[in-house]
Amino acid sequence: MHFNETLKNIKTYEAGKPIELVVREFGIDPKNIVKLASNENPYGVSTKVQEAVASRVHEMYMYPDDSMHELKERLGKHFDVDSKNIIIGSGSDQVIEFAIHAKANKDNAILINSVTFAMYEIYAKQVGTKIIRTSSREHNLDEFYELYQKEHPALIFLCTPNNPTGDAIDKSALMHFLDKIDSDTLVVVDGAYMEYAAYKNASKHVTPKELLQKYDNVLYLGTFSKAYGLGGMRVGYGIASRKIIQALYKLRPPFNVTTLSLTAAQAALEDQEFVQSSIEKNFQQMRRYEEFAAKKCIEIIPSYTNFVTFLLKNNNSSTDVSHNLLKKGIIVRDLSSYNLNAIRITVGTPKQNDRLFEELDKLI
Amino acid sequence: MHFNETLKNIKTYEAGKPIELVVREFGIDPKNIVKLASNENPYGVSTKVQEAVASRVHEMYMYPDDSMHELKERLGKHFDVDSKNIIIGSGSDQVIEFAIHAKANKDNAILINSVTFAMYEIYAKQVGTKIIRTSSREHNLDEFYELYQKEHPALIFLCTPNNPTGDAIDKSALMHFLDKIDSDTLVVVDGAYMEYAAYKNASKHVTPKELLQKYDNVLYLGTFSKAYGLGGMRVGYGIASRKIIQALYKLRPPFNVTTLSLTAAQAALEDQEFVQSSIEKNFQQMRRYEEFAAKKCIEIIPSYTNFVTFLLKNNNSSTDVSHNLLKKGIIVRDLSSYNLNAIRITVGTPKQNDRLFEELDKLI
Repeated sequence: MHFNETLKNIKTYEAGKPIELVVREFGIDPKNIVKLASNENPYGVSTKVQEAVASRVHEMYMYPDDSMHELKERLGKHFDVDSKNIIIGSGSDQVIEFAIHAKANKDNAILINSVTFAMYEIYAKQVGTKIIRTSSREHNLDEFYELYQKEHPALIFLCTPNNPTGDAIDKSALMHFLDKIDSDTLVVVDGAYMEYAAYKNASKHVTPKELLQKYDNVLYLGTFSKAYGLGGMRVGYGIASRKIIQALYKLRPPFNVTTLSLTAAQAALEDQEFVQSSIEKNFQQMRRYEEFAAKKCIEIIPSYTNFVTFLLKNNNSSTDVSHNLLKKGIIVRDLSSYNLNAIRITVGTPKQNDRLFEELDKLI
Repeated sequence: MHFNETLKNIKTYEAGKPIELVVREFGIDPKNIVKLASNENPYGVSTKVQEAVASRVHEMYMYPDDSMHELKERLGKHFDVDSKNIIIGSGSDQVIEFAIHAKANKDNAILINSVTFAMYEIYAKQVGTKIIRTSSREHNLDEFYELYQKEHPALIFLCTPNNPTGDAIDKSALMHFLDKIDSDTLVVVDGAYMEYAAYKNASKHVTPKELLQKYDNVLYLGTFSKAYGLGGMRVGYGIASRKIIQALYKLRPPFNVTTLSLTAAQAALEDQEFVQSSIEKNFQQMRRYEEFAAKKCIEIIPSYTNFVTFLLKNNNSSTDVSHNLLKKGIIVRDLSSYNLNAIRITVGTPKQNDRLFEELDKLI
């Protein structure tokens, strides 16, 4: 059977290894596995959210409120924007999908950072659009602007803080860049880790409200998968001008978020104490990573997220190191597929980090 | 801002009204609302499934096992097929999306029944493919074959039992039809309501195993949203030859099913007693609909599902009838958008049906 030409260029996405897989492959007791590969919140999910969801399991037979009225109202209040400027996705991934399918096609292009979130490229390949990359590892907005002028991309993706490197763009530089982009180019500002950046350094804190007030062509993305501790529930959102939201809505399948995911996200948004406490602990623990790296003379990229990226030296292969950690039940992300000899490690709980440092110390 | 041309032809899908919306619009007490619009299982969700999900709410922070190993193994066992022939979607809707994006494009066409599940058309419009429809209300496989020969569609959708009409194709006729279709044409057999048909009449019972054994070009779809009582959790599946599954996998976004949805689906599959009991009660209650229709001299389409479609007489407009029911807090589906003066009603619990008959009796 023949399929569409575009499929030929698509490789299946390899997600961070789940605990189940490591159990199956290496026969390690699930209790001894430390998963630091997918930037989940290591402090788990707020007990208030757990209670809210547990109290509504009898509602699983009912389709969710497809208008997502309640969640959009609460998000609107949280960000001080109108709920009509919000679209909810099955993770912010899905909003990326909508944006690419709405704007990109075989005859135009998207512009992304050299090293950045893998889903931009994956969805771009689905529509067969051209993918233009910068050359620098961290976002260099001058280079973005040069390529914008030269190549006229239909979409530009700025991931700040960036995954998988952890660096963040200065807000003032971002706004200056956006000022120069024409109104027909859709700029996606992916703030999946923005809650972490906002805590660490106000100069990196970009808010959807400010973007919305100034730019009709900017789509801000956020997620409940990271600081809110709901990676498993698949809820993200896009915030933009009405015109963009209406276009994305045309591509949204009905019931794209589950009944219990809506409940969970609504409850998570109310428990800011949990979110802030998770972030605080994250940066306390991150200091240990910085100290470990300094001790080992390993370069790390200053991180505004809940993960750190260790740029390994030539005598250590990131593939070997991550594989050897895996054999000990510790899952990290090898960045060799990004052409980096680096590993990305989610900053875990104190106990998880103890385990990691103990094993990593033997390997590098 | 300009968007892709294909968006111009897409209208946003209107889902069945959720209870929340009726509460907001008409100020009716949620306790008094009877929702018979979305073909959810009126007997709710199995208590075993509720317990399984409630016991794992602490896992919401973790991304799901993206290989979906456990669910695919159990589904494979249930249908006696290899798990490698299975793909899991966020509802079977999403597998429809994968199939259309894999095979349809601007230069080819899909063939669907005159009146059928709305999502085929919606996804087809996203890729700008031509949509060919039969003329008869129920599936007429002779007409399908004529159009197949004339138009050479890349995909054919057969929905059996069909939504929103409730009729089902005879298995022998279906197999005879499939025998005549060339191997490069993908035929989707959408069995979202197959558990109901299988119970009512064995001659309508199409199994993925039989399809897989005979046809490399057939994709069977099933869902946990109906008989399994998990409409809110968004889990469906496709079963087909390895080659088709591998192609669809390229279009599957990672983590497309939530952590708790996987738990729910796995537990639901184990509780066949709940499923069978729901189906049995469904057809007991359906007799009351048949009697009501006979009494009122209303034509109904013999249904192999958990809903009935009342073809109203000219003096009753389906839009008026459904709107008047809505004002009483009873939600049914007006089929005027399908060019039918008909209403589709989910067969509810005895009590829900009492309420419906009481109000409907006054209106038609």
